[in-house]
Amino acid sequence: MAKEKKMVEAITSMEEDFAQWYTDVVKKAELVDYSSVKGCMVIKPAGYAIWENIQKELDSRFKEAGVENVYMPIFIPESLLQKEKDHVEGFAPEVAWVTKGGLNELQEPLCVRPKSETLFCDFYARDIQSYRDLPRVYNQWCSVVRWEKETRPFLRSREFLWQEGHTAHATAEEAEERTVQMLNLYAQFCEEVLAIPVIKGKKTDKEKFAGAESTYTIEALMHDGKALQSGTSHNFGDGFAKAFGIQFTDRDNVLKYVHQTSWGVSTRIIGAIIMVHGDDSGLVLPPRIAPTQVMVIPIAQHKEGVLEKAEAIKNELQGQFRVKLDASEKGPGFKFAEQEMRGIPVRIELGPKDLEAGQAVIVRRDTREKITVALDELSKKVGEVLDAMQTEMLERARAHRDAHTYVARDYEEFKETVANRPGFVKAMWCGDEACENKIKEETTATSRCMPWKQEHLADTCVCCGRKAKAMVYWGKAY
Amino acid sequence: MAKEKKMVEAITSMEEDFAQWYTDVVKKAELVDYSSVKGCMVIKPAGYAIWENIQKELDSRFKEAGVENVYMPIFIPESLLQKEKDHVEGFAPEVAWVTKGGLNELQEPLCVRPKSETLFCDFYARDIQSYRDLPRVYNQWCSVVRWEKETRPFLRSREFLWQEGHTAHATAEEAEERTVQMLNLYAQFCEEVLAIPVIKGKKTDKEKFAGAESTYTIEALMHDGKALQSGTSHNFGDGFAKAFGIQFTDRDNVLKYVHQTSWGVSTRIIGAIIMVHGDDSGLVLPPRIAPTQVMVIPIAQHKEGVLEKAEAIKNELQGQFRVKLDASEKGPGFKFAEQEMRGIPVRIELGPKDLEAGQAVIVRRDTREKITVALDELSKKVGEVLDAMQTEMLERARAHRDAHTYVARDYEEFKETVANRPGFVKAMWCGDEACENKIKEETTATSRCMPWKQEHLADTCVCCGRKAKAMVYWGKAY
Repeated sequence: MAKEKKMVEAITSMEEDFAQWYTDVVKKAELVDYSSVKGCMVIKPAGYAIWENIQKELDSRFKEAGVENVYMPIFIPESLLQKEKDHVEGFAPEVAWVTKGGLNELQEPLCVRPKSETLFCDFYARDIQSYRDLPRVYNQWCSVVRWEKETRPFLRSREFLWQEGHTAHATAEEAEERTVQMLNLYAQFCEEVLAIPVIKGKKTDKEKFAGAESTYTIEALMHDGKALQSGTSHNFGDGFAKAFGIQFTDRDNVLKYVHQTSWGVSTRIIGAIIMVHGDDSGLVLPPRIAPTQVMVIPIAQHKEGVLEKAEAIKNELQGQFRVKLDASEKGPGFKFAEQEMRGIPVRIELGPKDLEAGQAVIVRRDTREKITVALDELSKKVGEVLDAMQTEMLERARAHRDAHTYVARDYEEFKETVANRPGFVKAMWCGDEACENKIKEETTATSRCMPWKQEHLADTCVCCGRKAKAMVYWGKAY
Repeated sequence: MAKEKKMVEAITSMEEDFAQWYTDVVKKAELVDYSSVKGCMVIKPAGYAIWENIQKELDSRFKEAGVENVYMPIFIPESLLQKEKDHVEGFAPEVAWVTKGGLNELQEPLCVRPKSETLFCDFYARDIQSYRDLPRVYNQWCSVVRWEKETRPFLRSREFLWQEGHTAHATAEEAEERTVQMLNLYAQFCEEVLAIPVIKGKKTDKEKFAGAESTYTIEALMHDGKALQSGTSHNFGDGFAKAFGIQFTDRDNVLKYVHQTSWGVSTRIIGAIIMVHGDDSGLVLPPRIAPTQVMVIPIAQHKEGVLEKAEAIKNELQGQFRVKLDASEKGPGFKFAEQEMRGIPVRIELGPKDLEAGQAVIVRRDTREKITVALDELSKKVGEVLDAMQTEMLERARAHRDAHTYVARDYEEFKETVANRPGFVKAMWCGDEACENKIKEETTATSRCMPWKQEHLADTCVCCGRKAKAMVYWGKAY
């Protein structure tokens, strides 16, 4: 048992050092590895399989929402990046530049895409002529590069995987509708599939995307009380259209600018799954996103019939669940620890005594609940346990978030809360960026969003005491 | 009808100018568009949907073959690229270099991956310790960059999409087995799904991959008689393992080098689909890969009941086939031409008279055969037509290839054949690179492969007359 114990001991406890716990989990659950390329990660099979499931779930929702996938070039010529002023200011300091192709210097440097609005705009300017060409609801799955200084697996890296939707519409109303529709789609996906409850809201001008008219966001609360921006949806209005000359002839024969949106979710969301659901034994994956939902683990597998029955159980469950059998030579304790570390939602233990009694033991990853089941009821029971786990994980995450969401009515209370109680703080705001800046400087909390569900907590701004314009969620963030 | 005619006229005929026909098809079928980034293409929805289907089909075959997906960084540090001598010589002239990150010059230039063996090797060197860690059968779906001078959509571009598998094994035999297994998988995929027959064989040393011990290839013949290398599988032996120090402790407790393989298929294969199956009306997609298999086109759709019935037909077929309804305001002739241009395998025509007679007309894209069917037999018949089309497209492509495969027994015959009869030429070869070079210089034909199915056509090399070692497929190639 020495080796098994060692494996568990190797993880720092969450309470002791959350950041180290996170690093330990991504490494020990074999989600990622570091690479020889500074700031870039290797996504290993266990990590990539989560991303594949996210892609599959999101992409089918996209297609139902009328989205078509495309692929744009990986490079952006410098002149193209510079066409939209706010946009280039936002991105220039953090892009990687290709200056040499083959053996020759390039005449014009190309940046490796940090995001592709300029390419989509350049394309739409040629592609859209008439109202008949609208709307265009395109998306691409790709990797993007941002030259970050401090990096952490999934949360912030120089390269990450994501999807970026880019749409063009005939009217401002339609663009706004699409912006909201996609944010709702993200929120639903997070809650239904990832069991992560989110706050939907609007970013302040200070926090919105460079070049956007408005940015909507979903904000999730991690186990340590910090917020994670988990997806964004931007309404660009006609700003990019004017910079790139994207015009169409409308039904009334008048030449008009299109209205555009953009929205994205990245591998960052895997960080959210880890930090919302994980525990001191490792990862805990919501059943709907888990690459392996059930691990069958035989006990005393050398005893007659055990391995055969375990195999039979795997085969029986296979059509209904994503199931694996661990028939390796490791001891059961080690297999348990490994399955727990990897966050596999359910394990089925089967030993000689179970075999004799015609039963098996189901163990839930999140609650450790052990349920003894007759073999002929196994598949039904596994289904029930996975469903219950999915539902309860969301409820637990919501309860945790609600228990860590505070209200502050004056600045003293605000500062005291941010300093001592990790979580969201709801407080009123006057709308002035100066107050946001002051709060950030003095507390390190930032405005996460102005939630769609507004509450009237007070008449005055929590910071300056002037008339309040909106309720804001504040928090320390990743 | 003016506009409809114009659309069809806009394509150059294949016989007149095959290269221009190809360019016209990729553009008019809306597969790709040119971009502002020289040599890079925009893959539009109709093109990307084909790639998605290729991915789906290949990926499920990979998973059955024990392949796990991962993701490696997009960048390769210069020092890493240089570790394997042959490899860097093969790639250095055609890579793009990032020299600036954010506002600073990089200390070491990074190239944008042209292919990722160096990254996989670097990773495996850390990741593999024991025989228990083997085999590693990893794959990634990504884009790669090669600084090509002359580019053509799908066939050769500065950036393209592909998958690259990279495996590590305990023994040379196992590596060879995997190399062959993956080539067979590709060949089966091409024949079963893309209806493209391929020649499986081994590349000569001159044509093999830089750094490989042996390269296997599948070669397909395009409609114009030129060959297209459509997928490759490489056995690296332990060359990379020695350069990167990838060692493991075997069961016998001896430290050994791993044996590696690599294999890939790219968006180039879409070029093959176009050039094997297309005709003067545009694209012809094999049913199994077609994003839309059936287009329902109402005739006189303003007449009572027509549009409703067309809609009902679409809904009825939807569960079984990938089906769309073209209810736009365009005339039927225009819709027909558009459906043909896009290569949609089957259209269903439904007009007021059909409605009265309780029937519809199925039109096959490849043969233009029209089949009148009772409405209650429609879905059965559509299934039969799609199956027949899939089978016959493969047979037709095979017959075309066989009719354009020649035998040359001496050099005069060889030169005369290459000059006058586009296609493959089978001829014996002595094994000397000098003959390959001479043939290439004098005829522009290259050795495509030494097929696994060898034939003894003659005793002597077609070029130099010395003793022959192998039969080779020769041809002009894309």
